Amino acid sequence: MIPLGGVGEIGKNATLIQWRNDAVLVDAGVLFPEEELYGVDLVIPDFSVLRRTGRLLAVLLTHAHEDHIGALPFLLREFPVPVYGTRLTVGLARAKARSRAEWHTVRPRSRIRLGPFEAEWIHMSHSIPDSCSIALRTPVGTVVLSGDFKIDQTPVDGQPPDLQRLAELGASGVLALFLDSTNVERPGITPSERVVGEVFAELFPRLRGRILLTTFATNVHRIQQAIDAAARVGRKVAAVGRSLIEVIRTASELGYLRIPKGTLVPVEQTTSLSDRRVLLLVTGSQGEPLSALTRISAGSHRQVRLRRGDTVIFSASPIPGNETMVARTIDALFRAGAEVIYGPASGAHVSGHASQEELRLVMNLLRPRYLVPVHGEYRHLVLNARLAQSVGIPAERILVGENGTVFQFTRTTGHIAGREEVSNVLVDGAGDIGEAVLRDRQHLARDGIVIALVGIDRTTGEVVHGPEIVTRGFVVPPDSDSLTAELRRKVTDVIRRCQQRGQMEVGVVRNEVRDSLARLLRQRTGAQPMILPLLVEV
Amino acid sequence: MIPLGGVGEIGKNATLIQWRNDAVLVDAGVLFPEEELYGVDLVIPDFSVLRRTGRLLAVLLTHAHEDHIGALPFLLREFPVPVYGTRLTVGLARAKARSRAEWHTVRPRSRIRLGPFEAEWIHMSHSIPDSCSIALRTPVGTVVLSGDFKIDQTPVDGQPPDLQRLAELGASGVLALFLDSTNVERPGITPSERVVGEVFAELFPRLRGRILLTTFATNVHRIQQAIDAAARVGRKVAAVGRSLIEVIRTASELGYLRIPKGTLVPVEQTTSLSDRRVLLLVTGSQGEPLSALTRISAGSHRQVRLRRGDTVIFSASPIPGNETMVARTIDALFRAGAEVIYGPASGAHVSGHASQEELRLVMNLLRPRYLVPVHGEYRHLVLNARLAQSVGIPAERILVGENGTVFQFTRTTGHIAGREEVSNVLVDGAGDIGEAVLRDRQHLARDGIVIALVGIDRTTGEVVHGPEIVTRGFVVPPDSDSLTAELRRKVTDVIRRCQQRGQMEVGVVRNEVRDSLARLLRQRTGAQPMILPLLVEV
Repeated sequence: MIPLGGVGEIGKNATLIQWRNDAVLVDAGVLFPEEELYGVDLVIPDFSVLRRTGRLLAVLLTHAHEDHIGALPFLLREFPVPVYGTRLTVGLARAKARSRAEWHTVRPRSRIRLGPFEAEWIHMSHSIPDSCSIALRTPVGTVVLSGDFKIDQTPVDGQPPDLQRLAELGASGVLALFLDSTNVERPGITPSERVVGEVFAELFPRLRGRILLTTFATNVHRIQQAIDAAARVGRKVAAVGRSLIEVIRTASELGYLRIPKGTLVPVEQTTSLSDRRVLLLVTGSQGEPLSALTRISAGSHRQVRLRRGDTVIFSASPIPGNETMVARTIDALFRAGAEVIYGPASGAHVSGHASQEELRLVMNLLRPRYLVPVHGEYRHLVLNARLAQSVGIPAERILVGENGTVFQFTRTTGHIAGREEVSNVLVDGAGDIGEAVLRDRQHLARDGIVIALVGIDRTTGEVVHGPEIVTRGFVVPPDSDSLTAELRRKVTDVIRRCQQRGQMEVGVVRNEVRDSLARLLRQRTGAQPMILPLLVEV
Repeated sequence: MIPLGGVGEIGKNATLIQWRNDAVLVDAGVLFPEEELYGVDLVIPDFSVLRRTGRLLAVLLTHAHEDHIGALPFLLREFPVPVYGTRLTVGLARAKARSRAEWHTVRPRSRIRLGPFEAEWIHMSHSIPDSCSIALRTPVGTVVLSGDFKIDQTPVDGQPPDLQRLAELGASGVLALFLDSTNVERPGITPSERVVGEVFAELFPRLRGRILLTTFATNVHRIQQAIDAAARVGRKVAAVGRSLIEVIRTASELGYLRIPKGTLVPVEQTTSLSDRRVLLLVTGSQGEPLSALTRISAGSHRQVRLRRGDTVIFSASPIPGNETMVARTIDALFRAGAEVIYGPASGAHVSGHASQEELRLVMNLLRPRYLVPVHGEYRHLVLNARLAQSVGIPAERILVGENGTVFQFTRTTGHIAGREEVSNVLVDGAGDIGEAVLRDRQHLARDGIVIALVGIDRTTGEVVHGPEIVTRGFVVPPDSDSLTAELRRKVTDVIRRCQQRGQMEVGVVRNEVRDSLARLLRQRTGAQPMILPLLVEV
């Protein structure tokens, strides 16, 4: 009985499944950084782990959200393996990744052989069309990865999740279920996407001015419902913001978006229309600083100027961490005199993730031998584990891990076998940001930098320039002159001491200067700026 | 008819009311900064505006929350005027401010004469005892400042808000009402503080392990209810965290907190008690990095180690902006194996601010001629203005301003008369952080710093040292050597060019070096680090 080594998530929504020397990766997502202020644009998994864990056969995608596909461009650069996913998923992922990797489109229920594995996609519902769970047959049993999902009984495209197939799999035996935990804090059932359409249908006819509606660019069904509601009241629709325009194009080409002839117009054309004939679909539902809506709210957008009578609808809720940015945008919109419809009470948004009863339903349909909660903060994993116990999965068969946790299974057993060292790579425009750089940036941000510049005569060891004190981002106290003078004296003293001890190696002097200035500054100001002694020997 | 010039809020909860050359300030709060990462500890109003607006007679306090009294120490240093407030308010504010200013304790309904003004405190309910609205009689009429409040019909101390007095004032005529807008987004009525006590009473007997309860240190009634619930089930209570210990001491001394004999013990003593005999009141409900609860959750607290069976109760909701820190703390607690009770569903917290029906009630009791929404983001002010219209206050008598807006009133008229330049002062350990320093810190944080160090012979103008390139917090691309070499060449070129043009003034050379390096770095890396050319003439 050779065990299946499944490294759980190796990063944000990237699950590695391994058998002997062969492995497949399910999804490869990015994390949007809290370190934004430190110039970090993206956080991606450190894929070096894949070199240690054997041969990567393929990447299997569940759906095309950034937090599941965003790391593909980086992954494929290093591991140009084939990528598999449903049509829209591949369509969107491919456009983003711009990689010459092999792209394979799969149909739900069809099966793909990959070395020792066989993968099957199972249609589910989520806030982007063509979302699937993946059932991976392995030599020791079937592992189901739920991906992100909800159980929408009345989906906009009329295709409810493939509960029959889940039931069949459950009947034929599931070794392990890797289950979405995002909404486990919510009791009951997540409302159907359709209810949002009903809110639009009720709202649009009542509005006299322009409507600006913001949602996630990839929420194609939401966009479909907004367009339909607009068309019914004779409003033309224009998309504002690159990502929305691209998604609308791709989704229309692939037939996931049906736009009534003449309804979609370029934003320029809307200026010639009366306000009650206009719906603008706008990016920026998360208050992203550079997004269209943020610019519009600040009055700095090239094409769209707000005016009294405009109504802005937030058809999205803030992702945890974005609350402040979103609130700021809403305030700016009110300031600009717009009417703003936002918040849970508005009914203009529903979640795409399963609440407790949907999670229980899937557990009971699949009746997995082992349950592994994934996708969520640690508390969500713990709560999902408890939920599993509530439907009778015994505690010892529920495995709670974290990124890097290695789960190992046989036909009958499963346990946590250890941890792979997985770390995150912080990426910005220029490239990877190492830990050291990030630490420096945090240090500089907090207390700034103090530079001590000295010219020393190589032969005599005499100070021939300075000491000069240069600061940036450092709070110079009121009596700054005296402090600067004191710092300069201190540097001179240190150098003299080094001379007397005959220790004029640059390294030694530099360290002594740094330490003594640090001590002095902490005493005088309480601050601990970065201290950079620069010695020029001439 | 001489107008009353009331500068609205000049900063976070600091409202200046002026008649001719005399002024009083109602509250002086601090803002907790979003610029935390840049070493900013506090944001306080720039009180220089008070020098322009005439003689400050006194500061009147509505209640003792940091966002209403936190700026007092800074204010009193510059303007040592008398401070008036109710007993607990003065008790807590005085302990914080450590200022030798005159402190006056007032009783609700009693009146204080201050130059042309007469101030009266009116008992209200809020999440700290002794909270009041203030009615300020002025030569042109009565101005009521609501302060922070809710209408608690069953308050823990048995003293409901003084609705009779509000009614009398309304009957005798109110010129303007400055009304709290914090919770205007919430329909209905904010639940009574008492319901939290009922949740504790129902919860505590069921818990077998230790209970750790975190709430705002100043929420004395919450603390009272926790202590009572603990005493009923024979749990001893210990306070963990400086601010809690201080508030409990002050509140007990002043008789606002009644602790059954022998119930309160030092935390050290709890180690000798069985877990089910212990309640720890802990600071850190907002996930503050240095707070007791955050340290406990990280396993780094000197006195308290978490263990399985412990239950942590969050009896507070995250202040907007703190969501992420709080979520992180909750995760850490789950990781440490504690049971955590949190979130609205738990019922362990109620807001201290009035919801829509309470705001309408106060509007109708006071029937103000003019309404000025205050305390809240701009959207809250707008929504409160609409709420006022819903009870029949005509739109033209509702004045929506922002910090610095000057409202001017006569007996019969009121309007926005202009803006005072009011700015915020960013304070850290070392002192005031100027805009320039903050900008530098943000710049350093985003892209780091690149230093070009050159030694130049004063006489020949020859480069005798370097050019040397030193970077901190800058992402050095993979081919760093070649980039550094290129930067050094560029510096040499620039200097040579300056020589040929005979322009060797340090200033000129420095600027040319900075600009050309900036251009080069943007081309090569896309990054825009701070560039610091350091020229050493020897």
